[in-house]
Amino acid sequence: MNLLVLGGDGYLGWPTALHLSALGHHVTVVDNLVRREYDVEMGVGSLVPICPLEQRVATWREVSGRQIDLRIGDLTDAAFTYAVVADSAPDAIVHFGEQRSAPYSMIDREHAVYTQVNNVVGTLNLMYAIAEVDPDIHLVKLGTMGEYGYPNIDIEEGFIEITHKGRTDVLPYPKQPGSFYHLSKVHDSANIMFACRVWGLRATDLNQGIVYGQSTPETDLHPVLATRLDYDGVFGTVLNRFCVQAVMGVPLSVYGAGGQTRGMLNIRDTLACVTLALLNPPERGEFRVFNQFTESFSVRDMARLVKEVSPRPVVIAEGIDNPRVEREEHYFNAANTKLLDLGLEPHLLTADVILGMLDLIERHKDRVEVEAIAPTVQWRSRASVLKTANAESDASFLVV
Amino acid sequence: MNLLVLGGDGYLGWPTALHLSALGHHVTVVDNLVRREYDVEMGVGSLVPICPLEQRVATWREVSGRQIDLRIGDLTDAAFTYAVVADSAPDAIVHFGEQRSAPYSMIDREHAVYTQVNNVVGTLNLMYAIAEVDPDIHLVKLGTMGEYGYPNIDIEEGFIEITHKGRTDVLPYPKQPGSFYHLSKVHDSANIMFACRVWGLRATDLNQGIVYGQSTPETDLHPVLATRLDYDGVFGTVLNRFCVQAVMGVPLSVYGAGGQTRGMLNIRDTLACVTLALLNPPERGEFRVFNQFTESFSVRDMARLVKEVSPRPVVIAEGIDNPRVEREEHYFNAANTKLLDLGLEPHLLTADVILGMLDLIERHKDRVEVEAIAPTVQWRSRASVLKTANAESDASFLVV
Repeated sequence: MNLLVLGGDGYLGWPTALHLSALGHHVTVVDNLVRREYDVEMGVGSLVPICPLEQRVATWREVSGRQIDLRIGDLTDAAFTYAVVADSAPDAIVHFGEQRSAPYSMIDREHAVYTQVNNVVGTLNLMYAIAEVDPDIHLVKLGTMGEYGYPNIDIEEGFIEITHKGRTDVLPYPKQPGSFYHLSKVHDSANIMFACRVWGLRATDLNQGIVYGQSTPETDLHPVLATRLDYDGVFGTVLNRFCVQAVMGVPLSVYGAGGQTRGMLNIRDTLACVTLALLNPPERGEFRVFNQFTESFSVRDMARLVKEVSPRPVVIAEGIDNPRVEREEHYFNAANTKLLDLGLEPHLLTADVILGMLDLIERHKDRVEVEAIAPTVQWRSRASVLKTANAESDASFLVV
Repeated sequence: MNLLVLGGDGYLGWPTALHLSALGHHVTVVDNLVRREYDVEMGVGSLVPICPLEQRVATWREVSGRQIDLRIGDLTDAAFTYAVVADSAPDAIVHFGEQRSAPYSMIDREHAVYTQVNNVVGTLNLMYAIAEVDPDIHLVKLGTMGEYGYPNIDIEEGFIEITHKGRTDVLPYPKQPGSFYHLSKVHDSANIMFACRVWGLRATDLNQGIVYGQSTPETDLHPVLATRLDYDGVFGTVLNRFCVQAVMGVPLSVYGAGGQTRGMLNIRDTLACVTLALLNPPERGEFRVFNQFTESFSVRDMARLVKEVSPRPVVIAEGIDNPRVEREEHYFNAANTKLLDLGLEPHLLTADVILGMLDLIERHKDRVEVEAIAPTVQWRSRASVLKTANAESDASFLVV
């Protein structure tokens, strides 16, 4: 297949591009390189050193003999997006090209607006480009399990049959997203569903769980091919962070009650799921949703798992002030059979997998900045908190 | 109360501002005057002549002795939005300040992106301004019944109790919006619901049906106080358009099968509903949804009603090519009891009301441009249609 990988310089975009190239597909990576700018803005970096994108691509050519093409530009630039789609005439587009951190979206108004505009407008431009260049192109869009929130009923894959007052319909699953980032993904899903309906596009929305790990068959071939690993309070995700804390000998920080339960998957399964979606495209007009995770764990259970496996002694700090506003104990039972039905063979979270992560972190531990792990972004409104403390405060500081 | 009316220069914003001022509230109108620019862009205008906003306000002062304050600016300009909220210290904000035409949002990519960015970013800025200036402010936001789409089950007011696999929860009602405009309102609703949850804001989302009519007690006091009446293919709504067609002696154009059924309300009930929402604010943290319509009619029935009432002979043209992609025959039963429970006394669509509209149009019939009534915006992708006609067409025209 002829494929575009949008956001192909990121944590998952890069290993996905390599994997699809290794499978013999012609891959063009599209990226605006903004993920590297977020590092500069936040004053942190990937635990594992990452190389410039051009160097990654050159090394891949040397190691594999395969060519990955590059297009540097921004999806919110419609002329760029149309040109990339028209020039490369892809069979499918894998869309990782969005701001993907919930805390980043909650920093302040500017970051909330940036996240929603960047993600929604980039995807709108892409939808129009597909509709106008070639509506046969299969859009494989990365969403998140966090779109659903944590309802007190089972979560289904995108749609739910509802019987109400004696009548029945299959409707989009109700969403309760938990940050402006998660909301941006919900907005995207609604926009894409509409485009499938009125323009006859074909799309797969991959509602992905939290990904852990950094090693894939292709990135392991050469250090220049490594993908990033984030452990900081803004871009780091929970299991990666716990492993870094275990290696550094600092307490594993469980926010709130720790009963927050999340769908999780190994980075290798991300590659497998995207590949399965590409090989089994939906019909024209179909908006298809897969829940892309393999297991679910509570935050508390993840901390205990790391503690059990770690060769060093580990302390778990429970009940840390939760920077998020979320349910800390809740029901969670989400369907994830559609990708299994297509043949997904999960890489589960074994002791060996955790040991592999701890070992990787051990090799790079001189790069860890422990103070970057603490949460710096509060979900609660800064000024609402200030108001509580000082109802007479001057409002003039609020004008931005 | 001290009130902001955002979009207070528009079809409904202006009469709402007058009505709230007449009730003795202190009203500040905020507007960027862009609705008048859309007229210039589309090459059409209101059937009823409208005066500059400054003149409207001055005349209202003369007629009523009451002062309406004015702030001209754009909600997507955060500094402006924060300043307006901080300076005027409102008890509540009535938010009509969005691009509100479905066809306008479907013109092309630029108009889709403009509509979603304008509406979503303006509302995000407003939410942040409320949270940081004074989270007690009640946000009364205009949504649309079109957010729900046309499911095969009863439509409830914002939320629905779902029993699924033996468990029950009350969840946001699933949405199936039918244009990029309707999608922007769904995005807004999701963003505001989140802000109520995490910041403790209080908001009322008024999912309004299609409004008809142009006469209110306050606008009738002086010709300078008149609000607009749109009949064109982009901003005109169905009943207003049928009445114009009846007066002009051209066939009433029913798109498709005509079974599209919509919640409708008289413009006077818009004023009453907004007032009821303001007088009965929700608790802090509550995201409250009211379905704001009084009756429902199919498009076919509306055409027949106008034909019956019209003193001139009327021809109904059924089965006109539908520019929209929508269900043309569908189930529709939507709850609308919450505003009635607060005391709403509906102005129903009587023969007298239609005669009043026909009479108004008769007085301004020299201003009607009949050719502006025809639909010019197609929901189906222009290029998808082109592709069907000419699969070998050069893609270069697509780069914008």
